[in-house]
Amino acid sequence: LTTDIITIALDAMGGDNGASVVVPAALSFIEKDFECQLILVGNEEKIRSYLPDNKLPDRLTIHHASQEVMMDELPSRALRGKKDSSMRVAIDLVKSQEADACVSAGNTGALMATARFVLKMLPSIDRPAIISALPANRGRTWVLDLGANIDCSGEHLFQFAVMGSELVSAVDGIDRPTVGLLNIGQEEMKGNEQVKAAHALISDSPLNYVGYVEGDDIFMRDDIDIVVTDGFVGNIALKSVEGLAKMISTALKEGFGKNIFTKIAALISMPILKALSRRIDHRRYNGAALIGLKGIVVKSHGGTDAVGFANAIAIAKKEVKEDVLGKVEDKVTALMQGRISK
Amino acid sequence: LTTDIITIALDAMGGDNGASVVVPAALSFIEKDFECQLILVGNEEKIRSYLPDNKLPDRLTIHHASQEVMMDELPSRALRGKKDSSMRVAIDLVKSQEADACVSAGNTGALMATARFVLKMLPSIDRPAIISALPANRGRTWVLDLGANIDCSGEHLFQFAVMGSELVSAVDGIDRPTVGLLNIGQEEMKGNEQVKAAHALISDSPLNYVGYVEGDDIFMRDDIDIVVTDGFVGNIALKSVEGLAKMISTALKEGFGKNIFTKIAALISMPILKALSRRIDHRRYNGAALIGLKGIVVKSHGGTDAVGFANAIAIAKKEVKEDVLGKVEDKVTALMQGRISK
Repeated sequence: LTTDIITIALDAMGGDNGASVVVPAALSFIEKDFECQLILVGNEEKIRSYLPDNKLPDRLTIHHASQEVMMDELPSRALRGKKDSSMRVAIDLVKSQEADACVSAGNTGALMATARFVLKMLPSIDRPAIISALPANRGRTWVLDLGANIDCSGEHLFQFAVMGSELVSAVDGIDRPTVGLLNIGQEEMKGNEQVKAAHALISDSPLNYVGYVEGDDIFMRDDIDIVVTDGFVGNIALKSVEGLAKMISTALKEGFGKNIFTKIAALISMPILKALSRRIDHRRYNGAALIGLKGIVVKSHGGTDAVGFANAIAIAKKEVKEDVLGKVEDKVTALMQGRISK
Repeated sequence: LTTDIITIALDAMGGDNGASVVVPAALSFIEKDFECQLILVGNEEKIRSYLPDNKLPDRLTIHHASQEVMMDELPSRALRGKKDSSMRVAIDLVKSQEADACVSAGNTGALMATARFVLKMLPSIDRPAIISALPANRGRTWVLDLGANIDCSGEHLFQFAVMGSELVSAVDGIDRPTVGLLNIGQEEMKGNEQVKAAHALISDSPLNYVGYVEGDDIFMRDDIDIVVTDGFVGNIALKSVEGLAKMISTALKEGFGKNIFTKIAALISMPILKALSRRIDHRRYNGAALIGLKGIVVKSHGGTDAVGFANAIAIAKKEVKEDVLGKVEDKVTALMQGRISK
């Protein structure tokens, strides 16, 4: 645990709404948090236009960057052609240790490619993965990969299981968190070749593996800490449940807003509905760690608002404060090396 | 439209709970419906043990079959080794036109392989797909494939789009229903090779294609009638939203059951909560058509209860009554042949 101030670089241009979301998020974060300083990376003029009275509060600085990575830009082009993009410079600040972590709501592919190029991977890990905790019936379930890797081999899925396991162990203080592999059934014969290969590799490892799990198990099984899947499936499953959650919120709002009686019912039900809405509000779950890298990078939803982006900053802070990176690096290295020497 | 009685064969041994669910479902269905007769296919003794007083009501018959397909049995083994299974015999009854449709909650892989072998495919269609309607913010959205095909090429996804389009056109009476392709972003560069290939094929077809859609669009976009994906992703997305829906139902029940005040709030809120729970109750959406076959086969969830299975019977009935098969066959054939001759 460090008592020093924590420095977090923010890609102020990233995401669907760029500085209009990132700057207000930084301002509201810094107002309530006294352990961090934030660096807004990006076009200085644009950033300043979102500062009330053009004034920078304490512990908030601007680091100018002249370029922006577009949301639909090819990762390879962003990496090669935009060395002064807000995204790249924010990651560079982590590399040079001027920042302890960075947060971006930008183009996922570009973020992954750039972070991998600049920060490098942990030993024996091929690719970064995006991990986040989702609300579950009792507590929460961590899911990875949520969209960094579209095509994954069994070996990649195995590495995700290793990284996820060590991250959750470090963050949640669970000794040997349980790992499930997402599949379309629990029977051995089910699944594609990648899933079957990963099943064999994880079964053969020291991880606390519970076998195949299904989509509903993410939310309803209390004995699973981590669910592993490829980024294509993980991202679609995540967005699908977000869609359903939005649909339910909308239906409840409409239902309770109908007439005077339902409005009275809503008043009495308020604490229950609020608790539920807090639990399924995806903004509260916004901010996913890009793990496997030698540096802390947090990915925010591209379309999030200031509340969601501020939550992603809080996640970056927590990772720094609890030295998640150091813990994960040591353990992943040990596990992967033990495997090679076997 | 037929005025004759509709005959539906039920695989009474299929699913996690077999006859203990299928027989009560058949009894409750036949009690309220006077247009159908049902054939319970399977072990006669077992089936009879679930009949009150061992009495068969009118319009319910038993067709004995000596074997059962296990939930974890390899499809190829079931197909080759169990020619007198309840599943196989139910499908045979459709082939011989002794039944207009069949319903099974059994092993998905075996059902697909057997149905394909016995009933054969529509011209130019390679594989059956599982399609079902999910609740959406306004109306509903049809999704396929929900688990029949684990690995799909771009051509397969294209064929799903064609079949889905014609099915929804026939069932919902929409002239040119809109089709979206499930992906992890709406940008052209996103997605795996199969998705990109399907995107090109569907764009080039006469289908009413809206392009890539994301998971939340299933529930929140009002302009999409059909969402196409492979069976691995579709099944996991479906199960994931079911899990979240269960979690929310549980949370609401717990919240409203807490004390006397919340119980009063629950009473007043009852109509709203009931409406919501009806909307997200997956039993009401139970029963998915296996399309692409020259015969009507409806797949029920393996773990469903009698309410859910009865709903699957109702779906089979609707498909027969509206001659969905005839309509889809004509249109799919026309579209696929138009494509070849181009």
